[in-house]
Amino acid sequence: MNFSKEEYGKGEDKMEFKEELKNYQTIINQELEKYVRKEDCYEKKVNDAMAYSLMAGGKRLRAILVMDTYRLFKEDYEKSFPFAIALEMIHNASLIHDDLPEVDNDDFRHGKPTNHKEFGHATALLAGDELLNYSYIAMSTELLKTVKAEESREELENKIMAFDEFSHAVDRMIIGEYLDTELEGQMISLDLLKYIHKNKTGALLKLGVKMGAILAGAPKEDIERLSSYAEKIGLAFQIKDDILSEEGDEKEMGKPVGNDKERNKCTYVSFYGLEKAKKELDTLIEEALKDLEPYGEKANFLRGLTLYIQTRSK
Amino acid sequence: MNFSKEEYGKGEDKMEFKEELKNYQTIINQELEKYVRKEDCYEKKVNDAMAYSLMAGGKRLRAILVMDTYRLFKEDYEKSFPFAIALEMIHNASLIHDDLPEVDNDDFRHGKPTNHKEFGHATALLAGDELLNYSYIAMSTELLKTVKAEESREELENKIMAFDEFSHAVDRMIIGEYLDTELEGQMISLDLLKYIHKNKTGALLKLGVKMGAILAGAPKEDIERLSSYAEKIGLAFQIKDDILSEEGDEKEMGKPVGNDKERNKCTYVSFYGLEKAKKELDTLIEEALKDLEPYGEKANFLRGLTLYIQTRSK
Repeated sequence: MNFSKEEYGKGEDKMEFKEELKNYQTIINQELEKYVRKEDCYEKKVNDAMAYSLMAGGKRLRAILVMDTYRLFKEDYEKSFPFAIALEMIHNASLIHDDLPEVDNDDFRHGKPTNHKEFGHATALLAGDELLNYSYIAMSTELLKTVKAEESREELENKIMAFDEFSHAVDRMIIGEYLDTELEGQMISLDLLKYIHKNKTGALLKLGVKMGAILAGAPKEDIERLSSYAEKIGLAFQIKDDILSEEGDEKEMGKPVGNDKERNKCTYVSFYGLEKAKKELDTLIEEALKDLEPYGEKANFLRGLTLYIQTRSK
Repeated sequence: MNFSKEEYGKGEDKMEFKEELKNYQTIINQELEKYVRKEDCYEKKVNDAMAYSLMAGGKRLRAILVMDTYRLFKEDYEKSFPFAIALEMIHNASLIHDDLPEVDNDDFRHGKPTNHKEFGHATALLAGDELLNYSYIAMSTELLKTVKAEESREELENKIMAFDEFSHAVDRMIIGEYLDTELEGQMISLDLLKYIHKNKTGALLKLGVKMGAILAGAPKEDIERLSSYAEKIGLAFQIKDDILSEEGDEKEMGKPVGNDKERNKCTYVSFYGLEKAKKELDTLIEEALKDLEPYGEKANFLRGLTLYIQTRSK
């Protein structure tokens, strides 16, 4: 079966995609659960704060990108789990800090009070630090296991490369968050807006795809092609976010809509207008799907995910 | 020359120690300088904020512990630099977050305004995140270099072990900071106070010594003995801090003294009283020096450092 855009995301295929998405989410939640500390001791509150955000039921998009990109090249995708989990941890760490009063000052996330609203400012700060650091615990534990088990040099090298991609991408993510905060309310150019999102949202999405390919030992040209794919869906994801923020349903979004506008934030919608933003989104999705062509049926899930980014309602 | 406690820390030896301490600090500052980003661009302010804290001229005690412990076993101690630097980064990251209004709400550090006083709350938060993450960039860069250079499996394993020790120690440091914040103003037991400091201050000091020994490929019994040494100086360091906070000179300390008392904080001095706290400090230093005996002259600098912890005036 050779997928075209028109066929995919409809009927049976759509069902299949949704089921696979759910499967992935279940696996990821199970894996994350293993890292949640439950000791009832002095440390309980900060552990609870970490678990609160980590298990709040996000889309797990970044972790899924690691796992499914890995499967383009190799079957044993459980080997990518620790890195997928690490990425989900750092993503949630960044959400906790982004929501803090001194940054975005948000009260709700995934339809629940934000971490600092639930646990207090200091605990949320430190729970964010903990989750950031926990992503590295997940990777150092995995690297230590690999070197002690005397796995092949290549396997070890791929994992170290993934770790190095990770630390550099997190730097970009934080810089993006910094710029977004620092320049809030200012009139900025479209290029700068793109630069901010390339870092803030794009860096971790690209990291997901890149780590998946690197861990599976993919050839360099595939890593490059898939990185380019990831950049496109990263930008598409942000444009869609802005569109949803403009016209979304508050209950579905889990946070107040029109937020960005109220805060006089530059968005793709404020630059392009709603209609042109939607066209830009469609073009990016089209081009992203082209990047997946060389992978045939193996990329079916990624195709579904790409279309999901375009059509999601929250 | 076989050192006794009475001889060391006096006259010529003391001069030698001070000179060596300064040498170490110069090396560390030079190494850290390499990581400071200077691009004059949108990211300038957050980079400046990172550099402001990183280059504020702390004692560099943790990094020195990595480097000098390494030298107990091997000569080529420049191999330990990336890990020593990483430790100094994470230490400074923790200071930035500790000083924030929601945690300790401190206005001064090393005699200068704290990071958030100088750069604002959001930038200080994100500069702290950046520095935390930067410590992992330093390590991932080093690991990648090692695996690409096809260094020995043993070398690689030691570095991965150091990375794993690092991530776990940082977890303990953050938990210590959390407990210190959460329990502030409450009456706690001496055991709990010790537990807090074992994590908050002790974890990174112990990490310094452990990483030095691990990176040099030291035998297990040495790693254990030196870990025990590090626990003692960690506790001694904190007791001395409390003593200085009680009776120190405000100008020398670079921050207001009597701070802890005002905030009704439990300290070793409030538990033991000043005189008994000093005795406890002396006992710990005595025992720590015993742990160094097997290393003869090679441990002279660590002896000096141990006595410095006891006698420092800031």
